[in-house]
Amino acid sequence: MKLPAGFRGAGAAAGIKASGKPDLAMIVSDAPSVWALTATTNRVKAACVVRNQGLEQTRKPIRAVIINSGNANCATGQEGTTRNSQLADLTANNLNLTRDEVVTASTGVIGHQLLLEGIKTTLPNLTNTLEDTSDAAAEAILTTDLVPKQAGVTLSKGASIVGIAKGSGMIHPNMATMLAFVMTDAKVEQDTLRTMWQRVIAQSFNQVTVDGDTSTNDMALALSSGQREANLDELEQGLLSVCQNLAQKIARDGEGATKLISVTVTGAQDDDAARRAARAIVRSPLVKSAAHGNDPNWGRILSAIGQEGVEADFDRVRIVVQAEPLFEGQPLEFDAAHVSAKMQHDPLQIEVDLAAGEGHGQAWGCDLSAEYVRINADYHT
Amino acid sequence: MKLPAGFRGAGAAAGIKASGKPDLAMIVSDAPSVWALTATTNRVKAACVVRNQGLEQTRKPIRAVIINSGNANCATGQEGTTRNSQLADLTANNLNLTRDEVVTASTGVIGHQLLLEGIKTTLPNLTNTLEDTSDAAAEAILTTDLVPKQAGVTLSKGASIVGIAKGSGMIHPNMATMLAFVMTDAKVEQDTLRTMWQRVIAQSFNQVTVDGDTSTNDMALALSSGQREANLDELEQGLLSVCQNLAQKIARDGEGATKLISVTVTGAQDDDAARRAARAIVRSPLVKSAAHGNDPNWGRILSAIGQEGVEADFDRVRIVVQAEPLFEGQPLEFDAAHVSAKMQHDPLQIEVDLAAGEGHGQAWGCDLSAEYVRINADYHT
Repeated sequence: MKLPAGFRGAGAAAGIKASGKPDLAMIVSDAPSVWALTATTNRVKAACVVRNQGLEQTRKPIRAVIINSGNANCATGQEGTTRNSQLADLTANNLNLTRDEVVTASTGVIGHQLLLEGIKTTLPNLTNTLEDTSDAAAEAILTTDLVPKQAGVTLSKGASIVGIAKGSGMIHPNMATMLAFVMTDAKVEQDTLRTMWQRVIAQSFNQVTVDGDTSTNDMALALSSGQREANLDELEQGLLSVCQNLAQKIARDGEGATKLISVTVTGAQDDDAARRAARAIVRSPLVKSAAHGNDPNWGRILSAIGQEGVEADFDRVRIVVQAEPLFEGQPLEFDAAHVSAKMQHDPLQIEVDLAAGEGHGQAWGCDLSAEYVRINADYHT
Repeated sequence: MKLPAGFRGAGAAAGIKASGKPDLAMIVSDAPSVWALTATTNRVKAACVVRNQGLEQTRKPIRAVIINSGNANCATGQEGTTRNSQLADLTANNLNLTRDEVVTASTGVIGHQLLLEGIKTTLPNLTNTLEDTSDAAAEAILTTDLVPKQAGVTLSKGASIVGIAKGSGMIHPNMATMLAFVMTDAKVEQDTLRTMWQRVIAQSFNQVTVDGDTSTNDMALALSSGQREANLDELEQGLLSVCQNLAQKIARDGEGATKLISVTVTGAQDDDAARRAARAIVRSPLVKSAAHGNDPNWGRILSAIGQEGVEADFDRVRIVVQAEPLFEGQPLEFDAAHVSAKMQHDPLQIEVDLAAGEGHGQAWGCDLSAEYVRINADYHT
């Protein structure tokens, strides 16, 4: 995808992945960019997460993001922290920047030291191949993903938003689940972008689940070069659209997934309760298994809601699967074979009305297949 | 197992299960028993759960428990509530008791009305076959369980404790996960038993997980006929032993499970934190998949702890799998093939020291196999 004005991207193979696939991505902003970061709530945090959170507190603009896949540089102690700094230094040197203008991100195995030699020799080449599209970078950040994930929108006054992401659950010996980088040339103040980003994340990446586990390296970053004027409401809607699109692509590419599950909850006490209920449904292994088997099992959906403890009027709760009403305070009559056939649809749509208010929310996930277990149980050295 | 003094049990087939297997169990106390109840925290509660919680508030002793399997009588509206009362009435009539002396429990499919005709004709026969063992009742409460679950201990002054349970995850269209009934003839005051029971449950049934989903019908009941003297500390230890034994049997019989996972956490800020961390580890689909594949994946254990957010000194956290130390603030050198071979052991032992205090706790679960998905994805009419 063509990047917004002021951004360039590149990707290359630096020998971190044994497969020889691209594993080093770079995003450069030609002028200082304002930015916003959200990162994992896991108490075990990779060196890059800790460093970026420190950088964000300085409130200074950034100029580049360097991302390696194949090694998460997590649980690597003081040496890991040092090597993460060195990754920033090497990148800054290549681009004639200061180290604090460079954000780092790592994803891959944990507990192994990141080898910098290959990165060092690859960086000049990476810098030389910077181009105005996100394609090479989108490819180089992947780990177990089956497909690259990109999304973009153009705003009415000509500004644009392009995002790249990686996801796919975690496989041996621990792949970081989720990285996302969203670039825009829409002009926005740093503080505004940060507030906006929190709201966007709450309705997108925080609503996607593959296996319920959060990783040590999760990170979502927004950057604005500010080169084009934009309406702020439109910008926020655009960011939301791009991030929801990427979130769905991550869910769809979940390990072993055969289909996307999209859950919409209405009638909640507030939006937060709606989002919690939606997440609870899409996270339930029983709901995920039923989705895989095209089983119109409203009881598991009902039980997942009850388990989450959100306000609901269970005498009026309504459950609709693939436009077929299955439950409304009590089980409805339905043709199970017919509904089961409709449930083969990808994405599978689940709609729930909690009948307790005006809150609305969505969440996305994937079905649970025997393949998920095979991927995650397989022992790799 | 021989029941404690004052109790009798029976089981029979009342036509609730299409398979014709036993589906009606009765436990009778010859004299009024003091009792304690813990039940599901799911907001969707079966009629029996609601009724029993009401009975418990009256603080009156009970005389009998009637349990049907094959139908959970949940999400069945007002009619379901009526039929649950009728189940109590029918049982009381057969035993010449008042209805408030009868506790009811149901487990099985939800959303279908419980048919009382078969129960009505079977009850006299059930009453006639009451005997001093728990075997028939233990069999008749099962749903998808592969084996009956019983455990018992004898206390030093001659009193005894016998418990029966059913578990096994939930399969279409929703089987209640967990029922447990623990009988003792040890003399104990009602209030003491209730306080004791909360502590025991916190360290046993609340620490077992098959798929992380709680059901609408979960219930654990303790009854004391009070016919024998006992030391109260010894009674509590005995109840804990019986309940932990049953909890492990439930985990071991989880859907598709090939082995029990036993997690012990030490060094937590307090016991509650230790129990939370232990549950988080045993609940993680990634840890469960790794256990299935004999993958010595300390990273997933570390990440599960970090995700739960309990206090831990991650520079000193120690992870030991099947007596093999894998991590101590940083990854340790180990022979992966050797550890993998040791991990075939059932139960699989995971020990974690959080290095943050004196808290201690355990949790039990099972591995996640492709068979779990097959069981739960299969569409049954």
